Amino acid sequence: GVQPVFILGPCVIESEAFVWDMARQIKGIADELGLRWVFKASYDKANRSSGKSYRGMSLEEGCGILAAIGKELGVPVTTDVHSPEEATRAAEWIDFLQIPAFLCRQTDLIEAAGRTGRAVNVKKGQFLAPWDVKNIAEKLQSVGCNNFVFTERGTTFGYQNLVADMRSLYWMRELGYRVVMDATHSVQRPGGLGSATGGDGKLAPVLARAAVAAGVDGVFIETHVDPSKALSDGPNQIPLGDLKGLLSQLLRIHEIAKE
Amino acid sequence: GVQPVFILGPCVIESEAFVWDMARQIKGIADELGLRWVFKASYDKANRSSGKSYRGMSLEEGCGILAAIGKELGVPVTTDVHSPEEATRAAEWIDFLQIPAFLCRQTDLIEAAGRTGRAVNVKKGQFLAPWDVKNIAEKLQSVGCNNFVFTERGTTFGYQNLVADMRSLYWMRELGYRVVMDATHSVQRPGGLGSATGGDGKLAPVLARAAVAAGVDGVFIETHVDPSKALSDGPNQIPLGDLKGLLSQLLRIHEIAKE
Amino acid sequence: GVQPVFILGPCVIESEAFVWDMARQIKGIADELGLRWVFKASYDKANRSSGKSYRGMSLEEGCGILAAIGKELGVPVTTDVHSPEEATRAAEWIDFLQIPAFLCRQTDLIEAAGRTGRAVNVKKGQFLAPWDVKNIAEKLQSVGCNNFVFTERGTTFGYQNLVADMRSLYWMRELGYRVVMDATHSVQRPGGLGSATGGDGKLAPVLARAAVAAGVDGVFIETHVDPSKALSDGPNQIPLGDLKGLLSQLLRIHEIAKE
Amino acid sequence: GVQPVFILGPCVIESEAFVWDMARQIKGIADELGLRWVFKASYDKANRSSGKSYRGMSLEEGCGILAAIGKELGVPVTTDVHSPEEATRAAEWIDFLQIPAFLCRQTDLIEAAGRTGRAVNVKKGQFLAPWDVKNIAEKLQSVGCNNFVFTERGTTFGYQNLVADMRSLYWMRELGYRVVMDATHSVQRPGGLGSATGGDGKLAPVLARAAVAAGVDGVFIETHVDPSKALSDGPNQIPLGDLKGLLSQLLRIHEIAKE
Repeated sequence: GVQPVFILGPCVIESEAFVWDMARQIKGIADELGLRWVFKASYDKANRSSGKSYRGMSLEEGCGILAAIGKELGVPVTTDVHSPEEATRAAEWIDFLQIPAFLCRQTDLIEAAGRTGRAVNVKKGQFLAPWDVKNIAEKLQSVGCNNFVFTERGTTFGYQNLVADMRSLYWMRELGYRVVMDATHSVQRPGGLGSATGGDGKLAPVLARAAVAAGVDGVFIETHVDPSKALSDGPNQIPLGDLKGLLSQLLRIHEIAKE
Repeated sequence: GVQPVFILGPCVIESEAFVWDMARQIKGIADELGLRWVFKASYDKANRSSGKSYRGMSLEEGCGILAAIGKELGVPVTTDVHSPEEATRAAEWIDFLQIPAFLCRQTDLIEAAGRTGRAVNVKKGQFLAPWDVKNIAEKLQSVGCNNFVFTERGTTFGYQNLVADMRSLYWMRELGYRVVMDATHSVQRPGGLGSATGGDGKLAPVLARAAVAAGVDGVFIETHVDPSKALSDGPNQIPLGDLKGLLSQLLRIHEIAKE
Repeated sequence: GVQPVFILGPCVIESEAFVWDMARQIKGIADELGLRWVFKASYDKANRSSGKSYRGMSLEEGCGILAAIGKELGVPVTTDVHSPEEATRAAEWIDFLQIPAFLCRQTDLIEAAGRTGRAVNVKKGQFLAPWDVKNIAEKLQSVGCNNFVFTERGTTFGYQNLVADMRSLYWMRELGYRVVMDATHSVQRPGGLGSATGGDGKLAPVLARAAVAAGVDGVFIETHVDPSKALSDGPNQIPLGDLKGLLSQLLRIHEIAKE
Repeated sequence: GVQPVFILGPCVIESEAFVWDMARQIKGIADELGLRWVFKASYDKANRSSGKSYRGMSLEEGCGILAAIGKELGVPVTTDVHSPEEATRAAEWIDFLQIPAFLCRQTDLIEAAGRTGRAVNVKKGQFLAPWDVKNIAEKLQSVGCNNFVFTERGTTFGYQNLVADMRSLYWMRELGYRVVMDATHSVQRPGGLGSATGGDGKLAPVLARAAVAAGVDGVFIETHVDPSKALSDGPNQIPLGDLKGLLSQLLRIHEIAKE
């Protein structure tokens, strides 16, 4: 019966001004709709397809900005961490630590995140079956972390393609876990643009609606004022101008689906 | 803006009395909800996993029963046909000819169905990409058939598993085709029960909701008064007692999704 | 310890003169290498991607030509059949009846082929797990057919792609069946050329060598004097000029692999 | 025309005595067969399915042992590294740095390994298409590393399964890269044993033979005196007693395949 949580924000902190502006605009939408949300932005993109792509800023700089936004706007913030050290350092500022999908099997990282006392969001690897998140849950629980969620972000489906299996959401929830749908990264076509990761942003709302109707505890959506100018993952992000309409739809579908 | 069509009925005509009873009960539900529907039942299961499984009755007997039901209850009827000859013969009684997924590439069958003047429902093969239904559409159009739909029923995903890709619905509609989601067969685990085809009936409502939220023109749901006693595909059919609640949910989600 | 069987020939009977010429040239190579072989050609391509593609000739004409070739050159002949009636009619002329992969679950076809008394080659569907061929074997055995083989021709792997799983060969042989590798169709990229089925003929020798080293009872290779001019499946066929070198390699690898 | 390289050793350094014994026995076999080889063992298993599994020893201890073995037996040694720091530290002792498959997209790790001046072996992620290794190659080349290979270790194929695509070997070599087949990990069934990673050791020789026949520059095979007692990846390792026969077969198949 509870409301879903929405994890919203741009892919990467393109600049301090950019990320403050994005956060304020999203807050306006969230307040209007009365929804629970978390602000998301990455300070570093450690696993870009190409070494030449934009990477971001330092952990301290990025997390400091996010923490200031969180405090000012009264919203929890989340970002992704890539090593045990980063998890520990980021936890000083960040409410909700996100483990990238490729790293979901790195025991030291999982345990370090779990030990911080912060909530943890583990993205399910593209190579992982839904019921295998149980091993990750046990690693977190073994260090005393019980406040975690798993995020579906698609499974490898042949070459350069992912498929978002709606059954996965059901199966992970059946195991007793809270589950978030990442509508943005599930529509990636990995490697499909040569040296960047392609995708199709028109599909993100389709998958978001489908997942909410299937049944989820939250939805992760990346948004950008102008996706065509985004420094990372542009093709998959939803234009900020479309966000309110989509969120409103998702809230109403959730009301029906949870019956 | 139009209402979705629901294709509803048991997997197979277990007996004349059984199928009349199912049709009358479903009609009661459909009338209460005011929904557009088609009654479905197979007279023959030509591609059972095992040669020892229940197969059904003759085409003439089966189609005669379906036609009588359709006339009496005022509902179009559909059944699947397996050869050009069957398509031609079934078309005397049947409003809507269904092409089984394994046979969706058999040119003679597609063209024979298209020539009958009846509406045609082609199930997309488990081996076919969404955009490859275009070739099937052209085969139908080449014989003058323009009244057809494509049904998504899952794609091969490793061994003994199918995945229902919600993007597929979007892509096929983008090509200009009407698209039905088969929520029953998409949850099959082919071969997973040894000599029968396994599945998980609890997942069919999950996929039906997801597909309607993603956007479809229709939903195909097999239902049975007691799935545990069904002669075919029992594990995937929805208990008749659950049907009204599910259909009501789907209608309301459709209203929101079509915005 | 036995020698592998090679099923060799062009995809389709382009003309009577063409198929005689192909058969004579292949026989020359087979005799030089001292290998066991079967001559293959299709008289009809019933499941072409597009309805506009070349289809072939009548069953009687095609099978008559194949039978004459078999008699004159002293080689068994094989072709594919698409319905129970075709199986029965083709069996008058044809030594070895091939069931197309899409049709491997059609019970009536399997049983009709099994009842002819001829050897049967069932291509494993792109949607079928290796261990699920057991159900097909039982359908054949139930009508008294014990002389059959299964052919691996790749499994659906995402959209518009197939993967030839070398473990499949091992698993089917472990079940006690004789197994043939279809090196030609396993390299198809279904739908990859829009309205035809694409592929990469350079990969067919790679898969043929791999399969023989993994362990098989036979190899299926389509060959054409000039693949670029073939009326069907051109991109995957091996140029006749390359055939002898490849077959010689495969024979020697088989000697080592069977240890 | 060159000889393939064999990367051989146990999954993990179970103890100093164990790994010395393994290395000496493998050297005996390699010398008899006259083959080029590299000794492999992991000091730490950082991505075990379960947090309760055996992990190993410290980097310094493990690499020190490997370096001593390499010096004494005159064989290059390899091990896997999991962070930029580990890459730098391990490179003091280790000839050939291995990047685990899950980490093949971590730019900092790839570049740190590349900067050490050591040869680098990048395992292709289970989520990566063969042609997408190009981006990894460019990251290595951008820091001056030109001595690297890619290892195929299977691609995600539905849930809890991997498939080793023999075309992948061909495609990566066509791009100009040297390619190694990991016959041990390609037969894993990830998560298939609940909290450990299952597999089938009888399949490793099948895939090794297939890959060599398809065409590779090297083969990676884990071996153990008694796989049933191995502390990690037991089910997939080849019994040491079977190693010589298998390697002899592979050498002879390579001679034929490279024609």
